[in-house]
Amino acid sequence: MRKRVRELDVKIGTLHPGERNMISDVPGVMVGHVTKCEDLDNETCIRTGVTAVLPHQGNLFQEKVPAASFVLNGFGKTAGLVQVEELGTIESPIMLTNTFQVGTVWQGTLSYMLGQNPDVGDTTGSLNVVVGECNDMYLNDARVQRLTNNDAVQAIEAAETDIEEGAVGAGTGMMCYQYKGGVGTSSRKVKDGYTIGALVVSNFGKREELEAARYQKAEMDESGIPDGSIMMIVATNAPVSDRQLKRIARRAPIGLARTGSRVHHGSGDVVIAFSNAYTIPHNDQGDYLEKQMLIRDDSQVMNELFQGVEEATEEAILNSLTKAQTMEGRKGRVAEGIPYSLFQRQ
Amino acid sequence: MRKRVRELDVKIGTLHPGERNMISDVPGVMVGHVTKCEDLDNETCIRTGVTAVLPHQGNLFQEKVPAASFVLNGFGKTAGLVQVEELGTIESPIMLTNTFQVGTVWQGTLSYMLGQNPDVGDTTGSLNVVVGECNDMYLNDARVQRLTNNDAVQAIEAAETDIEEGAVGAGTGMMCYQYKGGVGTSSRKVKDGYTIGALVVSNFGKREELEAARYQKAEMDESGIPDGSIMMIVATNAPVSDRQLKRIARRAPIGLARTGSRVHHGSGDVVIAFSNAYTIPHNDQGDYLEKQMLIRDDSQVMNELFQGVEEATEEAILNSLTKAQTMEGRKGRVAEGIPYSLFQRQ
Amino acid sequence: MRKRVRELDVKIGTLHPGERNMISDVPGVMVGHVTKCEDLDNETCIRTGVTAVLPHQGNLFQEKVPAASFVLNGFGKTAGLVQVEELGTIESPIMLTNTFQVGTVWQGTLSYMLGQNPDVGDTTGSLNVVVGECNDMYLNDARVQRLTNNDAVQAIEAAETDIEEGAVGAGTGMMCYQYKGGVGTSSRKVKDGYTIGALVVSNFGKREELEAARYQKAEMDESGIPDGSIMMIVATNAPVSDRQLKRIARRAPIGLARTGSRVHHGSGDVVIAFSNAYTIPHNDQGDYLEKQMLIRDDSQVMNELFQGVEEATEEAILNSLTKAQTMEGRKGRVAEGIPYSLFQRQ
Amino acid sequence: MRKRVRELDVKIGTLHPGERNMISDVPGVMVGHVTKCEDLDNETCIRTGVTAVLPHQGNLFQEKVPAASFVLNGFGKTAGLVQVEELGTIESPIMLTNTFQVGTVWQGTLSYMLGQNPDVGDTTGSLNVVVGECNDMYLNDARVQRLTNNDAVQAIEAAETDIEEGAVGAGTGMMCYQYKGGVGTSSRKVKDGYTIGALVVSNFGKREELEAARYQKAEMDESGIPDGSIMMIVATNAPVSDRQLKRIARRAPIGLARTGSRVHHGSGDVVIAFSNAYTIPHNDQGDYLEKQMLIRDDSQVMNELFQGVEEATEEAILNSLTKAQTMEGRKGRVAEGIPYSLFQRQ
Repeated sequence: MRKRVRELDVKIGTLHPGERNMISDVPGVMVGHVTKCEDLDNETCIRTGVTAVLPHQGNLFQEKVPAASFVLNGFGKTAGLVQVEELGTIESPIMLTNTFQVGTVWQGTLSYMLGQNPDVGDTTGSLNVVVGECNDMYLNDARVQRLTNNDAVQAIEAAETDIEEGAVGAGTGMMCYQYKGGVGTSSRKVKDGYTIGALVVSNFGKREELEAARYQKAEMDESGIPDGSIMMIVATNAPVSDRQLKRIARRAPIGLARTGSRVHHGSGDVVIAFSNAYTIPHNDQGDYLEKQMLIRDDSQVMNELFQGVEEATEEAILNSLTKAQTMEGRKGRVAEGIPYSLFQRQ
Repeated sequence: MRKRVRELDVKIGTLHPGERNMISDVPGVMVGHVTKCEDLDNETCIRTGVTAVLPHQGNLFQEKVPAASFVLNGFGKTAGLVQVEELGTIESPIMLTNTFQVGTVWQGTLSYMLGQNPDVGDTTGSLNVVVGECNDMYLNDARVQRLTNNDAVQAIEAAETDIEEGAVGAGTGMMCYQYKGGVGTSSRKVKDGYTIGALVVSNFGKREELEAARYQKAEMDESGIPDGSIMMIVATNAPVSDRQLKRIARRAPIGLARTGSRVHHGSGDVVIAFSNAYTIPHNDQGDYLEKQMLIRDDSQVMNELFQGVEEATEEAILNSLTKAQTMEGRKGRVAEGIPYSLFQRQ
Repeated sequence: MRKRVRELDVKIGTLHPGERNMISDVPGVMVGHVTKCEDLDNETCIRTGVTAVLPHQGNLFQEKVPAASFVLNGFGKTAGLVQVEELGTIESPIMLTNTFQVGTVWQGTLSYMLGQNPDVGDTTGSLNVVVGECNDMYLNDARVQRLTNNDAVQAIEAAETDIEEGAVGAGTGMMCYQYKGGVGTSSRKVKDGYTIGALVVSNFGKREELEAARYQKAEMDESGIPDGSIMMIVATNAPVSDRQLKRIARRAPIGLARTGSRVHHGSGDVVIAFSNAYTIPHNDQGDYLEKQMLIRDDSQVMNELFQGVEEATEEAILNSLTKAQTMEGRKGRVAEGIPYSLFQRQ
Repeated sequence: MRKRVRELDVKIGTLHPGERNMISDVPGVMVGHVTKCEDLDNETCIRTGVTAVLPHQGNLFQEKVPAASFVLNGFGKTAGLVQVEELGTIESPIMLTNTFQVGTVWQGTLSYMLGQNPDVGDTTGSLNVVVGECNDMYLNDARVQRLTNNDAVQAIEAAETDIEEGAVGAGTGMMCYQYKGGVGTSSRKVKDGYTIGALVVSNFGKREELEAARYQKAEMDESGIPDGSIMMIVATNAPVSDRQLKRIARRAPIGLARTGSRVHHGSGDVVIAFSNAYTIPHNDQGDYLEKQMLIRDDSQVMNELFQGVEEATEEAILNSLTKAQTMEGRKGRVAEGIPYSLFQRQ
């Protein structure tokens, strides 16, 4: 059983993690995985999956959450951000999968939500689905497109607060710093009783980049693993606006940088952040709303949200490494679980 | 047989159209439609389709084109823009369809391109697919999701230079100014022998907005047609950069405004612009390229490209109206083809 | 005495103007001008000035207003937008002047505000000054830099609700459609008792572009007046967020387009929008604020704010033309006041 | 004489620095300082200045350089970025100063350039001046506004390739991690013989943040130094486009993050990047240009430019600390030069 990085006596930052040290420490947030690990024949090796992040446990279309995104490196296929930017809301689960099945997962999620909302597409409006991705083709036969629409639905329905990390869900076939990567999560408690959490799918970097993080030196690997990406999902229950969420999102890469990433060309690095402190109702319940908001960008709680997202993102990435087990994938490739000895500080 | 607006003695602007007065006047550009017009039973009425715009006739992934987008109103589900913004290129056909099948068309287009490019997802990289949409639910039973992955492939394979307008392809079920809308196209010749063209899927506006365009007054329609959207695709063969294409894209809404649109909240208005004057090769043929570029943003050719995109967009929208025939759709709704008498100038 | 366009029986749009049909119909908004019209010697002709738009009549630094900007064409020198975009607030008067004195006006405004706020720069923080500009060098000897820091202060202190239009303040030396341009303003009443207003400094376009607006045809002018710019300031008292203000700002160019502008390369077209429905206090009065906000982007009031900004911007531009008198400037150039006969509809 | 960080046996990254390990290793780049260190009376303590970064040694307006900016945190007053974003060029020296004199320096720089370019403002166009700032009010009596227009000119004329670091020029009164900060620079050699360099004005952070960089622990300082900012200027001679420069700019904060910064609310963090591999002529020498460009974003040279900007920015920040001497400022405040013992790795 692989460990989380905190169990290796590595402590990131100065803020305290939430109870689980997971994005689900933000009350209401749940995460579900579908993992596809199949050897179809001598030639075809499936190592992929879907992960769903639910901002709250109600009907997301009826009760939208404020949201924002930040694209550090847009070499990626994330769908749904145009509307997130315009309206400052997310109205679907945030879906994560492999690069070649964004459409499948988009369509499956839409169908799930149409089921929940029988009026949509009949007497009212449209639905915006958000799907992020990383490229798992080093281990996974991605061209086969093994995932089905229903896998997206399954991931949503599997959502729980106890989140599995490592080579599961969208993280199943991912590589990070040329070790086995995948899903990782972490959280921080901030002022006034709020929490901020991060969940990543890690799929980037070369071993030599780890040096910048000043742990032990990794053995070089010349196997030519291609550049990958990272999806960073950020949640909080602080009553922030979409603009403030964008400021928070823009700081997640600070945590990424601290793990050593050089943010190569090929690394599509995307952050999606939301708050579930309040919701924006879809149905007409009056045009105006009285709500309590964090009004001061220069407040200590805002600065702790900034610090919290940096620390939680850094620790989530490290967890995605330390929790992921060695895996064999297509073409006989072996992705090594990162040796714990690396995390002895220099 | 419905007419184009120029056949009604309405002349937009001062620049000359290209030979066909279509986006395909830009050499290499082709457009294909798949139209789904089916009455499945007493209850289900399919009025939808797919349109594919091909920037050139080669392998788009191997020979990418410089591109940019501009989102006037991001209440829309367009996929693929994150990478277009980052790398300034388009590497797939630009696909247009209805709001509820972006995933289907994305996945179908990906499969088509994986077939063309057997290395992708095996030994190299990823593919970015661009899909835009408008919401045809006034006439079409969109919840049924009648389109298949293969319809995307069919639209690509149907591409030709002689472009059908009106209620075809992605435009099949669309409404514009509460009349029947759909696909329209137009082009302009600019200095130094270049051409700029526009193709739209029109699905926005109320009759009263037409007044701003100062044609004859339309009869009011209180039928409660919902706000819609417009997709504007712009092509040129002038050797402009991705930055200059963004400047061009930002001016397409000038043409939209001249038709009367108030750009309602519900109107997702997206522009995607590309040049096929040169291509960016995917395969390694050296890191550097010597190319002739338009270097002066203050040149007359640049200002004519600006004027051209405005005029071509305005005329494309009007063509989408004047070419579209009266159509009956779901719930017995009748979408009236715009009366030509409206285009007698006041 | 020149007339406003409404006095010429030209009616723009369908919404009703406010009492004055000026941006100052938004309660609290005031505008001040300093006009420099001097013939220094046989060679030097000063035709320039400063205009200050005050979002409310209190201490703007202590009570900031929510704000946003939209840059349609960034060929311009507007200062202060970086912070407006980050924090979604404006904390100074919005200053308008000529292209060559942005620094002078910035510095004069800063000094004025430091006087009002003795702690700033001593025990607390910094001040963000917003200055927009157009280029009046066709009539004005701009290289002389005749404005002083104190002119900025004078413009602020001259602010009133009854706004002078035409060749005054920042508009003194401006040209629009090759006629005399300058300052113009207009307003619209929208649902729920709110108002939206626009003030422009117009300095763009060629006579031939007016044709797109379908008034009478102007006589051509081959005098080689250079491309200019337009600054558009938008105010409302509706309780909208900075994100919603950006959506509103993005629609001001719809009004610009309706007057005929082709948005040439050389036209730096910038929109700055604010609401004074609520303020964000600088001094610490608690980190959280309970406030009533417009929560529904799809509400009728939002759509009327969109329509209102389009109509008010269009009418403000026309007022800047019809109110401006013929003026002689440097090199014996004569800028003709636009003939009213042009506004007889075709 | 204070040392550079490399003299303390701290080596940042794996790429090799250029000959001087300064931004001036990019051929043509020069930097000038004006330093104002005056005790005017018992009450007034001036600790401020101006720094000018010259992209090349010719007439910058006549020979513009491709450029881009990235705003990590827009709590700042940087002027001139609107046009940089639109046209992808810089046409003035990049000026750096204190928060309260952006206007002064803007106006002084404009006058200098009008002198160089007698046609501007007479027969042709306008000039875009870029001015960045940090807030030196902890040590400097900034309200006094001691700098004059002429100080900007002096800084430009003082430009040389041998760059002074620490408490000079714009860095004179700055604080970094609650130690004395200021100007720092560094460079990296990349593939194909190109160089990338960074110059920073550092004015941000608290001592406790240094811990994230994993050097020795600093003694805490509870003196309440306010949040500050960092300006990061990036130069290269690789033939990249403005879009590629934006990608490069977006990675400078990776180096910032590695020094420990939490990017507080109050830290206005702005990157401005340019290439001088080619220039865009102002005077009409034909509309088209044949030029050799880096066409492949996935090339090794691009990835080394990314790595290089990260390493050079990190090292420039550290140099700004290790080169800055202890200084006394207003109110008897003492800014301690960072103790070298901190840089012994843990």
